[in-house]
Amino acid sequence: MTSRLPSAGFSITIRVSVPSDSSAIGRLTTQAGEAGGVVTALDVVDSDHVRVVVDITCDTADSTHADQVVAAITALDDVEVRKVSDRTFLLHLGGKIEVQSKIPLRNRDELSRAYTPGVARVCLAIAENPADARRLTIKRNTVAVVTDGSAVLGLGNIGPAAALPVMEGKAALFKRFGGVDAWPVVLDTQDSDQIVEIVRAIAPAYGGINLEDIAAPRCFEIEERLRDLLDIPVFHDDQHGTAICVLAALRNALRVVGKELPDVRVVVSGAGAAGTAIMKLLLRQGVGDIVAYDRPGALHRKMEGLSPSWQWLADNTNRDGYAGDLPGALVGADVFIGVSAPNLLTGDHVAAMAKDSIVFALANPDPEVDPREARQHAAVVATGRSDQPNQINNVLAFPGVFRGMLDASAEEFTDDMALAAAKAIADVVDPGKLNPSVIVPSVFDARVAPAVAKAVRAAART
Amino acid sequence: MTSRLPSAGFSITIRVSVPSDSSAIGRLTTQAGEAGGVVTALDVVDSDHVRVVVDITCDTADSTHADQVVAAITALDDVEVRKVSDRTFLLHLGGKIEVQSKIPLRNRDELSRAYTPGVARVCLAIAENPADARRLTIKRNTVAVVTDGSAVLGLGNIGPAAALPVMEGKAALFKRFGGVDAWPVVLDTQDSDQIVEIVRAIAPAYGGINLEDIAAPRCFEIEERLRDLLDIPVFHDDQHGTAICVLAALRNALRVVGKELPDVRVVVSGAGAAGTAIMKLLLRQGVGDIVAYDRPGALHRKMEGLSPSWQWLADNTNRDGYAGDLPGALVGADVFIGVSAPNLLTGDHVAAMAKDSIVFALANPDPEVDPREARQHAAVVATGRSDQPNQINNVLAFPGVFRGMLDASAEEFTDDMALAAAKAIADVVDPGKLNPSVIVPSVFDARVAPAVAKAVRAAART
Repeated sequence: MTSRLPSAGFSITIRVSVPSDSSAIGRLTTQAGEAGGVVTALDVVDSDHVRVVVDITCDTADSTHADQVVAAITALDDVEVRKVSDRTFLLHLGGKIEVQSKIPLRNRDELSRAYTPGVARVCLAIAENPADARRLTIKRNTVAVVTDGSAVLGLGNIGPAAALPVMEGKAALFKRFGGVDAWPVVLDTQDSDQIVEIVRAIAPAYGGINLEDIAAPRCFEIEERLRDLLDIPVFHDDQHGTAICVLAALRNALRVVGKELPDVRVVVSGAGAAGTAIMKLLLRQGVGDIVAYDRPGALHRKMEGLSPSWQWLADNTNRDGYAGDLPGALVGADVFIGVSAPNLLTGDHVAAMAKDSIVFALANPDPEVDPREARQHAAVVATGRSDQPNQINNVLAFPGVFRGMLDASAEEFTDDMALAAAKAIADVVDPGKLNPSVIVPSVFDARVAPAVAKAVRAAART
Repeated sequence: MTSRLPSAGFSITIRVSVPSDSSAIGRLTTQAGEAGGVVTALDVVDSDHVRVVVDITCDTADSTHADQVVAAITALDDVEVRKVSDRTFLLHLGGKIEVQSKIPLRNRDELSRAYTPGVARVCLAIAENPADARRLTIKRNTVAVVTDGSAVLGLGNIGPAAALPVMEGKAALFKRFGGVDAWPVVLDTQDSDQIVEIVRAIAPAYGGINLEDIAAPRCFEIEERLRDLLDIPVFHDDQHGTAICVLAALRNALRVVGKELPDVRVVVSGAGAAGTAIMKLLLRQGVGDIVAYDRPGALHRKMEGLSPSWQWLADNTNRDGYAGDLPGALVGADVFIGVSAPNLLTGDHVAAMAKDSIVFALANPDPEVDPREARQHAAVVATGRSDQPNQINNVLAFPGVFRGMLDASAEEFTDDMALAAAKAIADVVDPGKLNPSVIVPSVFDARVAPAVAKAVRAAART
C-alpha cells in the first residue's frame, strides 16, 4: 500500500486569479485532476471583465502531493496563485473543543444559585456524602483522556503539546458519538510513578479514565496500578478499544467463512499494547490457538529474559512451541492480525494460509500487507484505513463503552464488558447484510453506541 | 449582620395539595410570608373539583429557615405537603459545565480532518514548532481552575470532590463573562510538592493557571514555584483577584471622599491569602501606611518567629510600630479592610476612625461589622454580599484578566497588569454616577470584562 489515495484529511484550497475567458477555469480543474488531485469545490470569490478569482478545493494524497498539485497549477499560463490554505489546519485554529455552561447566568438570582452563596450547600452535601458527587457535579458524565505523548498515532514519541490535537479530536468524538464530556489531560512527564500519581490526584472530577497513546510496556503497569488505586473505570483505548473492535470484526468474519473461534489458529504480528490486549481478549473468548510475533520472533515457552507481558504471552499462547519466522507461522493459519508495521507480507504469504483465511492488516497508515493483494487470496480482509472496506476503527467502541460505564456508575472496566461490547458491535450488522466487505458497521451508524452502551450497562450489573 | 435576608441561593419549591376553595392558595402565600419566606412564583400543577396541587416557590434565608417555612405550611389545616425541592440542588444535577465540539463531525471527510489521518499533520507541526500549540489547540483560550479543596469559600478544608461545584461555577463564570474556556482541576492531595509537580505536568494544554481556594501559607509557595516553572500566567484568584477588586473599589471610594492614596492610613484585618495580596498591591500603588492585623495582633518589626509572609508584612507595613489591638489601630484610620471573620467590630469602633472613613468589611457571608451600623459613621461602606450596596466581587476581575492575558499570549501575570485591571474596573463607573453607594460597577455590567482585558493586554505589551 505504497501509493496513497487523495483524501479529505489532505484537502487544500488554492486561491487563483485567472483570465475571465470561458476556458480558463476548465483548464484549472483539468490541470489539478491531471496532477492527481480530486477537485471537490470551486467557488468564485471575485470577478471583473478581465479576471476571475476562484477558490479551488482539492483532496490530495499527502503534503508532497499537495505541493505537486499547486506547482502544476502555478505552471499554467496566465494563472496567478494567490494563497494556498490547508483545510485541516484551518479547522484546527483555536482548538476543536470548548467548555460550555449548562446553566443560565443572566441575573443575580441565577448567579446566587450557581455560585455563592447557593453553591455552598451543594459543597456541604458532597462533603457529607461523597457519593453525591456523581449526582451533583460533572463527574457523572466526564472522562479524562490522558496521554504522555509517548506513542501518538504512528508518529511515536512527540510529547504532550503535539499530542493535544489528537486528544481534542478524541474528546470531540466522545461527545459526538457517546454524549460523553471528555477532557484532554496531556502530561509533561513520561515517568510511570508520576503519571499514576497525577491521574490518581485528578480523578475526583471524573467518572472514568481513558488512557491514550502511552507506549508499551509502561502502559500496562500504569493501567494496572490505576485500576488498583481508583474507584472509577480505567480503560486504555489502544489496548481495550482495539481489542473490542478486533473481536467484533473477527466474530463477523468467522460467520462469513463459516468457522468457529475455538477451531481457528490466529497469528498476531505485534505484541505491544494493542496486540497483547487483542490476544488476551481472544483467549478469554475461547480462540483455538494464537502465535504472537514481535521483535524476538514468535513468542514461545523456551524463550528467556522476556518482559512480563511477553512472558505471559509466551506462557499462554503458541501451543505447539512454533519458533520460526512470521511467514512460516502463517502457513495454514486461519487468521492474521497485524498491529505492527507496514509491508511485512506479500500476497504469496497470504496465499499460504488456510482456505477461507481472514486478514486484519491494521498498521496505520500503511498496512502489513497491501489489502488489494491480500484480497486475491484471503476470504475477508480488513484494515484501519477509511478508504478501504472493513475499517476497524476504535470509534465503534469507546464512546459506547464509556456511555455504558458512566450510566451504570461502574467502578471498573471488566473483561465481561469488553466481550459484551464486541458482541454488540458485531450484532449491529444485520445477518442478511453480512458479507466479506461488510463485517463491521459504519462509524456513522447511529445504532452502534447505544447498543454498546446497553451491553456494557448489562455487564456492569452482573 | 446576624440575621440574613432571604435570597435566591436558598430558594425552595414546595408542592402542596390544597382544597379548591377560593381562599386556600391565599392562606398558603400568607403563611409562607409570615414565616419570613419571599414567595417568587406560584404554579398550578393539577386540579379537580375538590383539590388543587400547586408549586409554591419561595426564597428563604438559609436551610434552617427553609425548614421553618415548610413547617409553617405543613401546620395549615387541610394542606398536604407532597414534596420540597431545593432549586439550587436541581440546578446542580449532572454538573454545571459540559465539553462541546467546535467542529462538525457529520461525515467521513470531516472526521478525516478533525481526527486521523488529517490530525497527524497538525501534531507534526506542533512537534516541530511548539509555539504553534497556541494557534492550533485549545491552549489558546483555556485555563485550569486548580484547587486542593483546602480553603473553599467559608467552608474550610472540605476536600477536592466537595470543592468541585465551586470550580464548575467558576468555569461557568469564566465563559459567561470572559469567553474563556476554564476547566476544573480538583486535586486529591494537599502536599505542596505534589501540587506543584501536577500543575507543571498538566500545563501543556493550558494558556493560564487559576489557583483557587488553596489555604495560606501553602498557596504562596505553590504560586511562587509554579511561576518559576511555567511559561504561562499563574494567578491565585483569592489573592490577586481580590486585591484587584479592593484596589478598584478603594480608588473610587477615595474619589468620593476626596482623599489621595499616599495620604491615607489603612488597617487590614486578616493577613491570609487575600489580605497579604491586598496589602502588597496597595503598597505598590503607593498607599500611605498600613497596619496588618491577624492572630498574633498588629504585625510589627519587633515580633519574632513570624512566617515568611507575615515577616515581610511586618517589615514593610506599620511605619509607627503600632502593637495594640484592632480597635486601637482603627482610631484615626482612614480605611478599614476586613478579610477575616464575622462581627469583630461595632459601630462605635467605626466612629473612632478619621472623618470620611471607608469600611470594606468583606468576610463572607457575615462581615466584620454590620454594614448598616458601619454606614452610620463611615462615608463609604462595601461588603462581599450581594444584598448590600457596593459588593466587592472577584467576578469583576478574573474573567477580564485572563481574557487579556490569553489574547496577549502572556507568559506571566504581573503587578502592572493588576494595577491596570484595578484602574480599568474603577474607571467603568462614570464619574457623574460615582457616590457612596456606587463605587464599583455591577458584575453584570458588560463593559467591565472588555475594559479589564484591554488594560491587561496593554500592560502585557509594555
